[in-house]
Amino acid sequence: MSKSHPIILLTDFGTKDSYVGMMKSVIFTLFPSASVIDLTHGVEPQNLKQASFILESAYPYFPPGSISVTVVDPGVGSQRRIIAARTKDLIFLAPDNGILARILEREKHYELRAVTNKEFFLKRVSSTFHGRDCFAPTAARLARNPTLFSSLGPRIKSLNQLHFPEAGLVKGKIVGEIVFFDHFGNAFTNISRKDLEASRLRNPHIKVGGKPLGPIRNSYYEVARGKATALFSSSDWLEIAVNQGSALAKLRLKEGTKIEVA
Amino acid sequence: MSKSHPIILLTDFGTKDSYVGMMKSVIFTLFPSASVIDLTHGVEPQNLKQASFILESAYPYFPPGSISVTVVDPGVGSQRRIIAARTKDLIFLAPDNGILARILEREKHYELRAVTNKEFFLKRVSSTFHGRDCFAPTAARLARNPTLFSSLGPRIKSLNQLHFPEAGLVKGKIVGEIVFFDHFGNAFTNISRKDLEASRLRNPHIKVGGKPLGPIRNSYYEVARGKATALFSSSDWLEIAVNQGSALAKLRLKEGTKIEVA
Amino acid sequence: MSKSHPIILLTDFGTKDSYVGMMKSVIFTLFPSASVIDLTHGVEPQNLKQASFILESAYPYFPPGSISVTVVDPGVGSQRRIIAARTKDLIFLAPDNGILARILEREKHYELRAVTNKEFFLKRVSSTFHGRDCFAPTAARLARNPTLFSSLGPRIKSLNQLHFPEAGLVKGKIVGEIVFFDHFGNAFTNISRKDLEASRLRNPHIKVGGKPLGPIRNSYYEVARGKATALFSSSDWLEIAVNQGSALAKLRLKEGTKIEVA
Repeated sequence: MSKSHPIILLTDFGTKDSYVGMMKSVIFTLFPSASVIDLTHGVEPQNLKQASFILESAYPYFPPGSISVTVVDPGVGSQRRIIAARTKDLIFLAPDNGILARILEREKHYELRAVTNKEFFLKRVSSTFHGRDCFAPTAARLARNPTLFSSLGPRIKSLNQLHFPEAGLVKGKIVGEIVFFDHFGNAFTNISRKDLEASRLRNPHIKVGGKPLGPIRNSYYEVARGKATALFSSSDWLEIAVNQGSALAKLRLKEGTKIEVA
Repeated sequence: MSKSHPIILLTDFGTKDSYVGMMKSVIFTLFPSASVIDLTHGVEPQNLKQASFILESAYPYFPPGSISVTVVDPGVGSQRRIIAARTKDLIFLAPDNGILARILEREKHYELRAVTNKEFFLKRVSSTFHGRDCFAPTAARLARNPTLFSSLGPRIKSLNQLHFPEAGLVKGKIVGEIVFFDHFGNAFTNISRKDLEASRLRNPHIKVGGKPLGPIRNSYYEVARGKATALFSSSDWLEIAVNQGSALAKLRLKEGTKIEVA
Repeated sequence: MSKSHPIILLTDFGTKDSYVGMMKSVIFTLFPSASVIDLTHGVEPQNLKQASFILESAYPYFPPGSISVTVVDPGVGSQRRIIAARTKDLIFLAPDNGILARILEREKHYELRAVTNKEFFLKRVSSTFHGRDCFAPTAARLARNPTLFSSLGPRIKSLNQLHFPEAGLVKGKIVGEIVFFDHFGNAFTNISRKDLEASRLRNPHIKVGGKPLGPIRNSYYEVARGKATALFSSSDWLEIAVNQGSALAKLRLKEGTKIEVA
């Protein structure tokens, strides 16, 4: 029963320090039978765009009832708000710095609150580690009893937006860019499968930084080992990849490299 | 009860992306009271030999009843099979790329199946992330109910092998090589304690890349701080180490460096 | 019930190997409903000072009833003892190499034992991996039943000390040094909030490596983005930081850089 509200952590804390461990210590103190999932702690320090991309790509797989906590928080200690959003199945906690903006645009139906009720926090709140002092205890209390959501603080109507590059249709071409590289050197663009469907392109071919890369394939294996190709990623982003290799290394890509589909 | 079938994950996914977190999200969606152990996600991308070595060294310590999932899968999206093996106490899931070959050679008694029953998978299976779409849901369903093993798919008789260098006895000497370096710079060879016992060498001395290193010791502490020695590792592989230092750095070793015991 | 004794792991094992996964495999074998928290495995190999600093900073947040296991153990395989300490709320296991010294000096009331009862260990104990063979099984058995503490071995009166630089009051100034850098490049000193309170300095200003850095602030946000400042960390150490940047990179700091408060 209590198990049905896992807490999902996404931070830029890395794994060399005890920051994540302290968050979990607080969670287990307040809710000994918590389930905690580390989405990742490998977001680049203070890279909101990256955190937003990772969260947007992963959240469709979150267990219904789960409470996700995203702490990438360059504004810690300033007047930035903590916000909480509840969709049909999920609760999200994050600083009000735009990280949740794209998800909530997708979701449309949600309840949004500012987390102002200090009873959810630890008694002593530091100015530098709200992950431990505010986010972890709030998540633990919600995981014990999600109906407390309405006690978090007042409903709010708007949240801060994030500057995230959007793909667009320009003279019949889809124009986007590379926004993320994974551990294998696969490059993810901001062009989604929906963008392609909406474009009604019949036989779409890709250009990467102006150079032709051929058609969109269905799997890495449709090109020879070591060859580059484009396909839709497991989260439905157009992905530039090298079969059993690194597109980042082989094609000298970077964040922002221009992608055209025509 | 449900706790007695932990799921053990071994991948090359690293920790910077959300791949492991998505696998766990799927597991907890299907089985909210799952226990998950990260064996490691630090296998070098697509390094099957490394994954095989890590799994072979660690599995004798797996909890009875556990289900291990190894996803090092350069063939994802190709026609390669997913296989499942059940020994007396353990279940193993992996791509049919040789990762399980050495373990099953050791175990001898096991039931081997091809995982073809799509009811174990997510409804939508991507071509690039079978860890999330095939392996995680299959492991979760088996952890809930291990008797489902026989529904995974047909029994098969053989599996793909891995090219893994074997140590051997040559003119009375054991000849092997370095196959793995750990985080501390300790070097592990493919020479096992059993190889030494079988050799009947009386007073075995080691050569590393042709240079004598002395006898096999019982612990790092039998040589002075900073000095190199050989001993049997905690998983019974012949190990080249430096007391409180790194053999990799001090001795300029590499994978494949030749080791002789005579 | 069983959930109220989480096991907290702190090691220098890194995340690339299966060492931590093997420890957890042993824990779940002996205690299938264990809760395990990774404090961090990112301590530099064999860096006792770092492990001591991390543990001292984090343990005030450990769940009451938890059992922490610190395995940074350059002396593994030598005659060094394993020790166990029980305070009012917590149990600590560690090699007797000074890692626990500063915590126990803070705690004052505790019961200290040498762990000599081999029934707590695995049957076969290697000379190189006591984390798996001694610490993990002892922690699992204590998590199942903490009253076993008194069976671990004889009470002992003293433990080995660690050479850890202490801050001091010199001619009215507090003099300390940098002892730790976190993942963000924040620099932590050995000067605590208590040291400042005891000094009765009225308007304390900081010098870092001889250069003035201004007063102690309350949050990163009191200086402009990219500017350096000093403040008390979330664990009450004097911290040198750059708002949304890295003090390590910007100020060219290192471990041992001298800090003065006057």
